[in-house]
Amino acid sequence: MASFGDRVIGRMRELKHPLCVGLDPYLGRIPAPFRRGTMEPREPETAQAVEEFCLRAVDLIARDVAIIKPQASLFERLGWRGWQVLERVIQHAQASGLLVLLDAKRGDIAETARGYAQAYLSPEAPCGVDAMTVNPYLGPESIAPFVEEAQRSERGVVVLVRNSNLDSSSYQSVETPAGPFFSVVASSLARWQARLPGQSTGWSSLGVTVAATHAGDTERIRLALPRALFLVLGYGAQGASAIDAVRGFEHGPAGLEGGMVNSSRPILFPTAASDSSAKAWEQSVRDALERATHELGAAVA
Amino acid sequence: MASFGDRVIGRMRELKHPLCVGLDPYLGRIPAPFRRGTMEPREPETAQAVEEFCLRAVDLIARDVAIIKPQASLFERLGWRGWQVLERVIQHAQASGLLVLLDAKRGDIAETARGYAQAYLSPEAPCGVDAMTVNPYLGPESIAPFVEEAQRSERGVVVLVRNSNLDSSSYQSVETPAGPFFSVVASSLARWQARLPGQSTGWSSLGVTVAATHAGDTERIRLALPRALFLVLGYGAQGASAIDAVRGFEHGPAGLEGGMVNSSRPILFPTAASDSSAKAWEQSVRDALERATHELGAAVA
Repeated sequence: MASFGDRVIGRMRELKHPLCVGLDPYLGRIPAPFRRGTMEPREPETAQAVEEFCLRAVDLIARDVAIIKPQASLFERLGWRGWQVLERVIQHAQASGLLVLLDAKRGDIAETARGYAQAYLSPEAPCGVDAMTVNPYLGPESIAPFVEEAQRSERGVVVLVRNSNLDSSSYQSVETPAGPFFSVVASSLARWQARLPGQSTGWSSLGVTVAATHAGDTERIRLALPRALFLVLGYGAQGASAIDAVRGFEHGPAGLEGGMVNSSRPILFPTAASDSSAKAWEQSVRDALERATHELGAAVA
Repeated sequence: MASFGDRVIGRMRELKHPLCVGLDPYLGRIPAPFRRGTMEPREPETAQAVEEFCLRAVDLIARDVAIIKPQASLFERLGWRGWQVLERVIQHAQASGLLVLLDAKRGDIAETARGYAQAYLSPEAPCGVDAMTVNPYLGPESIAPFVEEAQRSERGVVVLVRNSNLDSSSYQSVETPAGPFFSVVASSLARWQARLPGQSTGWSSLGVTVAATHAGDTERIRLALPRALFLVLGYGAQGASAIDAVRGFEHGPAGLEGGMVNSSRPILFPTAASDSSAKAWEQSVRDALERATHELGAAVA
């Protein structure tokens, strides 16, 4: 099997756009036709509603995007039934040809971090995904167990470096003798970029988050990590343009490449209304997908 | 109901020691009498083995400590069955009189962070605990949803500030104009300390991690957060002494107080052998518990 970096870039070259669709099943936004019972998080019917919604969302987008990013917290808040749903949604997405990046933002040390890595990245993972997001606060070596499990299974690790919410700058942009704090983190990850090298495309299976809303910082991160995949946050809902979203991308055989540009709510919940019909919701998702892939496709062309 | 800070300090005053027992069911260390089948993570029998081990561990320690700290990753790696086990273990611990601090190290922003908070802290949480650990990398405001849910339910939030692994210093001790990076994080949490005030004991339901292995840093964190509970890491297995573990504690009616001193492997896995009999394991746990409570009791007396 090709590495994660090669698989995601390979598929994006075919599709000619870098969109990643965030799968965030907010209970309050799930459209009326999928709703069941009270939608109280602990009810079995709620888990069923989330499952049906997610499976339908996967079917609607599977042919047109390379990768989806399910948000772990919104499954986790349903208790153990939410984990059953997440496992089924991941299996269905992968069977439909999608890559899956689990947005779990896990982080711990040594054998405890390995527990998280084994849950999602190892060949024997009960909830195996193509890549997962990891929080580096406990130090650069805390990433090692994730990289080691990813290496065994040709999977990927996406480390939080720069985030798109304004408040993240309170920590990430603090000045240090080596530059802003996020650049200290980025530089320390070079060892993991090298441990997960690309083969056919040259792109590492190590990813890092960058913020389209702080596009100047993105270029600094690209200098520190020339072969890391970017998970670009802040495009769409948070107001960043497609041009800002592809900062730090590089010329490849099918246009600019080197990252996944995430959009969540604007694709699956293009209107605030949860009372739309199934047909109206499906059409609005298809329209939103078309707009985003067209706009991002133009930015990388 | 009393707040988390009052409950944990109140119970520690009765017991006259600040020990918190980490509940880390490493599959390779679970003693022979509890082992079932292949112990492969996805097998239902493995989840059953972990459940029986954890329930017995709870029974062995429930009368003698205030609080336990289950490690989420080691349940999560078993897939959805692990979450079922975690929910049952938490219920059993609480029914046995223990407080439960879930070591989940979750962190995200806005509505996504709220998903995690609702999973564990809200009154309607499917897996309600007395407190949970949270990772602050995404900014001080990313803690808000956890604090808000904790406030509604008199629960607690323990934020990672300083960790005990050597490598965490690569980020946490980086110098900034306002002092080392961990002190920037600590100072920014004062707002949350104030939002979760103590009533009968004066201790906030906001906690922060401190490292007994970096006891000098602990005093700096106490200055920034005079009423925050400490979750003290690094005592025992990582070599810090009981005296270093209670740095930053303050005089209370029953001795020094103001934090929970965690010990995980030295209590539940006092020997490396997983082939001991149930009786031998139980006796070694009781002995290890006695030693740790005696030593910590002397340090706070």
